[in-house]
Amino acid sequence: VVEAAGGRAGIVKPQVAFFERYGSAGFSALEKVLGAARASGLLIIADAKRGDIGSTAAAYGQAWLTPGSPLEADAMTISAFQGVGSLADPIRLALAAGKGLFVLAATSNPESLAVQTAFVQQGPRAGATVAASIVAEVNESNGDARDSGTLGSCGVVIGATVSLADYGLSAEDFSAIPILAPGFGHQGAGFDAIERVYGPSGRNILVNSSRTILEAGPADIASAVSTQVRELAKVYAA
Amino acid sequence: VVEAAGGRAGIVKPQVAFFERYGSAGFSALEKVLGAARASGLLIIADAKRGDIGSTAAAYGQAWLTPGSPLEADAMTISAFQGVGSLADPIRLALAAGKGLFVLAATSNPESLAVQTAFVQQGPRAGATVAASIVAEVNESNGDARDSGTLGSCGVVIGATVSLADYGLSAEDFSAIPILAPGFGHQGAGFDAIERVYGPSGRNILVNSSRTILEAGPADIASAVSTQVRELAKVYAA
Repeated sequence: VVEAAGGRAGIVKPQVAFFERYGSAGFSALEKVLGAARASGLLIIADAKRGDIGSTAAAYGQAWLTPGSPLEADAMTISAFQGVGSLADPIRLALAAGKGLFVLAATSNPESLAVQTAFVQQGPRAGATVAASIVAEVNESNGDARDSGTLGSCGVVIGATVSLADYGLSAEDFSAIPILAPGFGHQGAGFDAIERVYGPSGRNILVNSSRTILEAGPADIASAVSTQVRELAKVYAA
Repeated sequence: VVEAAGGRAGIVKPQVAFFERYGSAGFSALEKVLGAARASGLLIIADAKRGDIGSTAAAYGQAWLTPGSPLEADAMTISAFQGVGSLADPIRLALAAGKGLFVLAATSNPESLAVQTAFVQQGPRAGATVAASIVAEVNESNGDARDSGTLGSCGVVIGATVSLADYGLSAEDFSAIPILAPGFGHQGAGFDAIERVYGPSGRNILVNSSRTILEAGPADIASAVSTQVRELAKVYAA
């Protein structure tokens, strides 16, 4: 996959679970993949969906975002079930090291709706949905970027299969926030979802295509990457 | 820690983040710790707080709960930010393999309050808090155990620093659910919280003591374990 993506795509997103299944041997293989991706000039998002509090959340940030760490990536996915505030240490680390975080907000699976659309009762975001309160806190974490019109280091995960309105969100919430967008291809969204779901925030999204590419198999995977990139370029040109 | 706990405590709960920080070398060390714990007759809860959907959630379950896996534990902590339904595969795996899962519900950190006390709007649990809806779905997952008066394989994490009422929960919700209870010691709860916080469910809880024991240092750690166990026995005897 790294060979196929190098020079054709910008970013690879290894799914950590499929390496973790093999224990330390799996992580050793992942370290080789990360090294090869870096050597190919690819950026890496570690799809780890870690989450914890305090010194433990800090350790997860160190594992994936510290320059020189064996598992160093350019960004990681992370979960705020224990509050965006519980992620203060990895957020600080990302901002300091020029790395990125993508906090789960409105994910692409239907079972997520109950938790992510629940209405917050406590604290300064009372009345907002869980998804909207996470997006607002991530936006605050981006500090200066928010005001300068550039994208911040802290992003969110918003699936391409969702309707923003269902989650109490609107496209204007994301002016300074990069969006990692799963849900294309096998999970059901076509590239037409970029305009329909994300509207003006469609310029901020990282379109994720996994199984559509992997299914092509070793012989055809490079051309599958190129096809996806070409189709995406057409969407943005239009 | 394993040497100190063997024969004195029932369970060890390694915090995966602190191994992950060292990449594959850290996981290799963790595999040795897990092997030593098993050889000492200790049960192991992998504090991993993983979470994802579909085949990825299944892979996390396989990593930690499959007999013979390099990272095999007896139970793991897991997050339902994407819905308890997203954890169907690891739940099935736990039930089939006689392993356990502890789903985060009402954790011990104050930043978690906004998400975990939010009111669900969608689906069959509308009107319940996120924490209560997770507890109810975990209870359903336990199937037969729920009706036979025994504890099920699926548990929840309820911090000893919380008030159940704040999270829309009551002690009666846990009749068939084991509870992993962090928050004792450094996070602020004394053993008196067992009765005060958990009431009649105090019989279902796994009391977690980490830093209070670790801080004793290598020379005194075994006696620190014994002291904690003795104090806990007094609470239950009373």
